[in-house]
Amino acid sequence: MPTSKDPSFAAIIPEGDNRLRQVCTDCGFVAYENPKVVVGAVVTLGEKILLCRRAINPRKGFWTLPAGFMELHESAETGAAREALEEANAKIEIEALLAAYTIPRLSQVQLIYRARLIDPAISAGVESLEVGLFDYADIPWDELAFPSVNWALTQFASVRHLSVFPAFGNPPGETGDHHP
Amino acid sequence: MPTSKDPSFAAIIPEGDNRLRQVCTDCGFVAYENPKVVVGAVVTLGEKILLCRRAINPRKGFWTLPAGFMELHESAETGAAREALEEANAKIEIEALLAAYTIPRLSQVQLIYRARLIDPAISAGVESLEVGLFDYADIPWDELAFPSVNWALTQFASVRHLSVFPAFGNPPGETGDHHP
Ligand SMILES: [Zn+2]
Ligand SMILES: [Zn+2]
Repeated sequence: MPTSKDPSFAAIIPEGDNRLRQVCTDCGFVAYENPKVVVGAVVTLGEKILLCRRAINPRKGFWTLPAGFMELHESAETGAAREALEEANAKIEIEALLAAYTIPRLSQVQLIYRARLIDPAISAGVESLEVGLFDYADIPWDELAFPSVNWALTQFASVRHLSVFPAFGNPPGETGDHHP
Repeated sequence: MPTSKDPSFAAIIPEGDNRLRQVCTDCGFVAYENPKVVVGAVVTLGEKILLCRRAINPRKGFWTLPAGFMELHESAETGAAREALEEANAKIEIEALLAAYTIPRLSQVQLIYRARLIDPAISAGVESLEVGLFDYADIPWDELAFPSVNWALTQFASVRHLSVFPAFGNPPGETGDHHP
């Protein structure tokens, strides 16, 4: 396993690189660690917005957007649609990129798309306790799973009636950590 | 090493997952493989655009945007600025997200920002043979390193005089593979 606990791995700057990596001293394999990509969507049916209550940790019991880790060999848009299907049995059509966030503490990039529910039949997938369609005024703001869910919903509201809008990044000064 | 060549790893669906992963049969470590994130920028100085001629493979000798793999614990914007500094000694200011591309064959997400050169002094970093500032009409289209460089430059041109514009994705039907 390419971890620093493996005795054959050592922290070495590989040739042509400029920082320490975990390198196998037996065979030279460089175990690059990379940021992870989360893909998700703000999914609407008319004025209503799809949220999922998490059945798993972290933040079990809190509400989130359908989103999850992007798989190999899929596009970001396909991944976002796959997550909506897995978590809410929701068939969606991707419309536009809403935001590209970074959570440096978690080395996580989040690509959040705006999407349309193309079949009103939704139900909880294995990672959801329940799913629901919420009016913006009824969003359970105090029970959202992650700061970035709040960002996406707020930013979405500011452009929801525009067909063309620039993609957002993190709100100024925000890093994705929970505020006390 | 968590590869399928390691005899202690086997293809297993971990509990709570829904697809085969490489799992160590000794200790249960799941070697998730994740898409990689490339961050880069279309950097301008007035009407001119910064390009770098690659000193390394793949596509050594061809022209590209300053871009490279995002590191752990940095934001995408910081990463794009770092790459411009490493590859072209270019100090830049990120303006807006230009595009989020996916290259499924390479399991690669590319986040390309629009940026402004804040100091006209540029020079080749170790991964560049030379760097240059090009008028759009003088871009060496036949010597661009990757299809996504072409996409970014073309899409950039379509919005360069707009201060607000939607982020692009892959052009319709394009997957990032070279056309014959
Ligand atoms: Zn090894
Ligand atoms: Zn093991």
